[in-house]
Order: sequence, then structure tokens, then C-alpha cells
Amino acid sequence: MKSWRFTGTNNPLELVELPDPVAGPGQVVVDVKAAGICHTDVGILTDPGWMSMLGQVPVTLGHEDAGVISQVGGGVTDFQVGDRVAICPTTSAGCPGSSFDGGFGPKIVIGTQALVPIPDEVDFVKGAAATDAGMTSYAAVVRRGGVKQGDKVGIIGLGGLGQIGARVAHLLGAEVYVAEIKEDVWPLAEELGAKDVRRSIKDFDDVRFDVIVDFAGFGDTTADAVDVIKLGGVVVLVGMGKLDVTFDAKSLIVNQCDLRGSNGGTPEDIKGVYELMRSGELDPVTTTVGFDEIPEAIERLERGEVKGRLVVAY
Amino acid sequence: MKSWRFTGTNNPLELVELPDPVAGPGQVVVDVKAAGICHTDVGILTDPGWMSMLGQVPVTLGHEDAGVISQVGGGVTDFQVGDRVAICPTTSAGCPGSSFDGGFGPKIVIGTQALVPIPDEVDFVKGAAATDAGMTSYAAVVRRGGVKQGDKVGIIGLGGLGQIGARVAHLLGAEVYVAEIKEDVWPLAEELGAKDVRRSIKDFDDVRFDVIVDFAGFGDTTADAVDVIKLGGVVVLVGMGKLDVTFDAKSLIVNQCDLRGSNGGTPEDIKGVYELMRSGELDPVTTTVGFDEIPEAIERLERGEVKGRLVVAY
Repeated sequence: MKSWRFTGTNNPLELVELPDPVAGPGQVVVDVKAAGICHTDVGILTDPGWMSMLGQVPVTLGHEDAGVISQVGGGVTDFQVGDRVAICPTTSAGCPGSSFDGGFGPKIVIGTQALVPIPDEVDFVKGAAATDAGMTSYAAVVRRGGVKQGDKVGIIGLGGLGQIGARVAHLLGAEVYVAEIKEDVWPLAEELGAKDVRRSIKDFDDVRFDVIVDFAGFGDTTADAVDVIKLGGVVVLVGMGKLDVTFDAKSLIVNQCDLRGSNGGTPEDIKGVYELMRSGELDPVTTTVGFDEIPEAIERLERGEVKGRLVVAY
Repeated sequence: MKSWRFTGTNNPLELVELPDPVAGPGQVVVDVKAAGICHTDVGILTDPGWMSMLGQVPVTLGHEDAGVISQVGGGVTDFQVGDRVAICPTTSAGCPGSSFDGGFGPKIVIGTQALVPIPDEVDFVKGAAATDAGMTSYAAVVRRGGVKQGDKVGIIGLGGLGQIGARVAHLLGAEVYVAEIKEDVWPLAEELGAKDVRRSIKDFDDVRFDVIVDFAGFGDTTADAVDVIKLGGVVVLVGMGKLDVTFDAKSLIVNQCDLRGSNGGTPEDIKGVYELMRSGELDPVTTTVGFDEIPEAIERLERGEVKGRLVVAY
């Protein structure tokens, strides 16, 4: 099978012929129907720091994968050939496109603990987009933040993750307030269902926040969130805009604030995203490209020319 | 009744005659049997910053109070004259010694929501000591930290609160590891039941901590705790040794750490302290003084000459 492989930092992806994979015990082969292209892929191609974090090199990239099961290994009883599934990239089965070959090739072999059934109402492109940005945003808002109906929720940063996070919180019945320094994206906040959008979370001095999710992570953003959160409230930190974060210990203590780090997610988080996608109400923007266009599409992503999530459709 | 009253910063306490208080609806009068003297009292007497934080001035100090109910107001059914009770200083009833007159006088009037029954096995001196240092340490370890049997727990700072916190964690069946920079107090750590004591929490590179409670709060101590906590672990910040805390956002995110501020506690926390005190296994050191010695005892506390918790016994 033809696959786009990473061979080393600053090398172009190589299109190579690989043998079709075979499902071992507890594993399945997934025929890839859609694979997201992520800023992480840009990082792997250009930043030598990634070399030591990959499970193997050369490796076929592509860690946001959805497809159809074409083969089941021994002992697999809960999935069968023909099932539409996505792959959670952060389970003990390992990460496609890093631990082993991923979705920039047509077949992936993976342990069943990583599989999430895709509902009929969700297409493969959305199904793939849900596995990384969707899962991470959902995990931060729902599992780590504990957002529920009626909560007053602050979303800091309306980038790719923040947009999904804001929408998820709105669909769960929360009152959503967005803090975003780029005023040109403010209209999007209202489209997503936010009640209001301002430059800084500190500008909402009339709102007592139950939960604030900081998708920006620029240090000041987190410190501000800890300052303004209500007594016993939760601040979730997702973004790593700045690694040294300074906050006021007195605010954390007096507000009895829970400041929670959130990283990636679980198959359950992806299921949660699909529940919201089924109705069409959570519908992140995607741009699709073909298999042959993968190297060029990564360059477009690097140049910032892509609208929404970039997904390869097979 | 004779009471020691605070009249203003840097004024000596004044011994004045006040009318006996009367219990209003939902209130009781407590005849004080023991009242703790706290570093906060030193602060109130010497630091003008406290003036705006007190509910009234002049005020009879004393916020760690235990005694016997001598009068019940209208509508009070769950307490009666003769009950041995302590007063939680952090409820909606207000704080004796700050919101209204406290335990450096012989009678306190207080709403019943602040009352905690003292078990027969716990004397008034220990009963009073449990209300502030005991409650705060217990709240940090048990309620905020969620420490349970078998957990590996780090206690940073073996001062007054840390000593109780370490002992509480040990009595709950946790494995306790103490980080304390002052090596002369290391023997105490083992007396309290700790498995090991080292200078810094980072020195325990062979321990994967479920919970770390930072009773020191010197910035670096919190940052170190966030760095070494296990995946999904909890760091509780109690101490305010330094107000600007800088930590590594990457550690918080990648470790999916919960960093929780803890402040004061609840009547339930005091009940938890009493459960551990009943058996005699939680038995913090106290020094008792008489009512007439209060001003002099506060000066001894300020000079660092007091061993354990200082309590006025009536």
C-alpha cells in the first residue's frame, strides 16, 4: 500500500510502498476513510525536538483517523468487519502516526481499546476531526471542567480548540462568555452561541464564573482566570502559549480554586463529541484534500492558509 | 463580663467590662472554656492592614473557641444548655473575634450553624485547638486533597499546620513523605508516622505521589509539587509563604494535575478532626495559659517562644 512517510526532520514526506498490515490478537485493521492533518504534523516535519518523541522513524504520519474495519484479529468480539470507527490517539494501544504507521497510508492496525464507533449521522471527515481537536476541547470543558447546564463558563482564546470548546459548553446548556484578544473573530463567538465576547476575562466584572477554560495559556490569561473565578470554581488550563505561568497564590487559596491541567482525552470524550455532532449542532468547519495532496496541504497549513480543520478524504 | 478587647493597631489589649450577651433567634450563648491564641491575633495587634478586615472595632479577640452552651435562643432545637461545643470560625454565622466579640471574653453569642459538638473524649483545650489549625489542615488533606488509605502523600512544610496535616494523612492510612528544609525538625516527622523526610519534594524521585499538600507555599515548593505529581494527581496549596507562584504550565497540563487552593474549613472538617482526636492518636502539642495572662502570652507567641498551639483555659 502507498503511504506518506516521515523519514527525518526537514525531509519531505516520501511516498513509499508498504506491505498491508495484519491484525494481531486483540487488534483490527482499519481502512482509512479520513485522516486529519494537524499542526503537530507541521511540527514533526520541521522541529528536531519531535524526533525523540516518535515511537518509530520512518513512520507514516496521521494521528486523527476514521475508517471502516476490514479485518479483525483473534479474540476480538466487540467489533466486526464493516464497522465504522475512529481511533483515539491517546490510549494504551499507542498513537497512529507516532508509535506506528498512521492515517497518511490507507490501512492502520490498532488495538480495539482505541476504537470509538462513529454514529451513522456523522461522516468520516467529521469523525476524524473529532479525534484530536474535538476530543481535547471536549475533555477540557466537560471531563476536566465539569461544565453542566446553567453554569457560567468563560472560554479564553477562540482558536481551533476554543471554538469547539465554546460550542460544546453552549450545547450543554451553559452560559458562555468568550475572551478573545483578536476582535476580528468576535462575530464567530456569537455564531457559536456565546452570550458575550470581550478582550479579557477580567472585562467580565459582572459575571461570576463557575468554570473558565483557558485555551490560550499565555500566563496572564491563567492568572486572570484564577483571580476572577467564583469561590470553589474551576479553571482548566489547556493551552501552552507560555510555559512559565505566574499566578497569585492568594487568589487560588482564598477563591478555593481548582486549577486543572487538561491534556488530550479518552475514547469516552470522543463519544461525547459524537453525541453532540449527531444532531448537526456541533459542526466544526473542515477543509478536505485528497491523498495525493497531503505534502502540499501540510505546507498550506504551515502558511496559515487553511480554514477550519484540514482532513484528508480517501 | 470582663473581656480583652482590641481597640486599634499597636494599642495594648484593654480589659473592659461588657454586658453579658443574650441569644437571639437561632443563636446560643457559649460559656468559653478554652480559646486558642493564634498568629492572626499577633497580626491584628501589629499590622494596620487588619483594621479593614475586622467586622467591628473595638472587638474582643479569640476565634478558636470551645465551651458549654449556657442559653439557647428561640427556634433552637438541635442544641441545649449544657452541650459541649466548639465554634467553626468560617460559617455564615460570622467569625468570633472579628465579626463580633470572641473567646478572649467569657461568653460568646453565635448562630447554631457554627456549632460542632465536642466528643466526651476530647477536652476543651484540644477542642479549641481543632477549630483553626486542625480544621485548616484537615480540610486541605482530606476534603481538598481527597487523601485516602494507601495513597502516597507528600507534606511540604512541617510547621503548625503541616504537623497536623502529616499526622491526619498517616492516621487515614496514607504513606506520608515530608519535605522540610529545617533538618532539626526531621525527628518529629517520624514521630508523626511519616515514612521518610527529606529537604525537598523533588528529593523523593523514587515516590509517585497521589497527593501533595503544600503547607509552605514558597512558590518553588508549589512548582516542584506540580512537576513531580503523578498523572492525574492532586496538589493542594495552603501556605502563602510567597504570593506570586510560578509553575511550569507544561507540567500541570501533561501531568493533568489538579492544583487546588484550600482556605479554612467547615464544621464537617472539625468533626473529622474530633474523630481522629477521640482515640488520642491525633494529639497536637498545646501550651495553656490563664485568662489574665492573655496579653503577655500573645507577646510570647510573637517572640516565637511558644511550643505547640497556645490556648487560654478558663
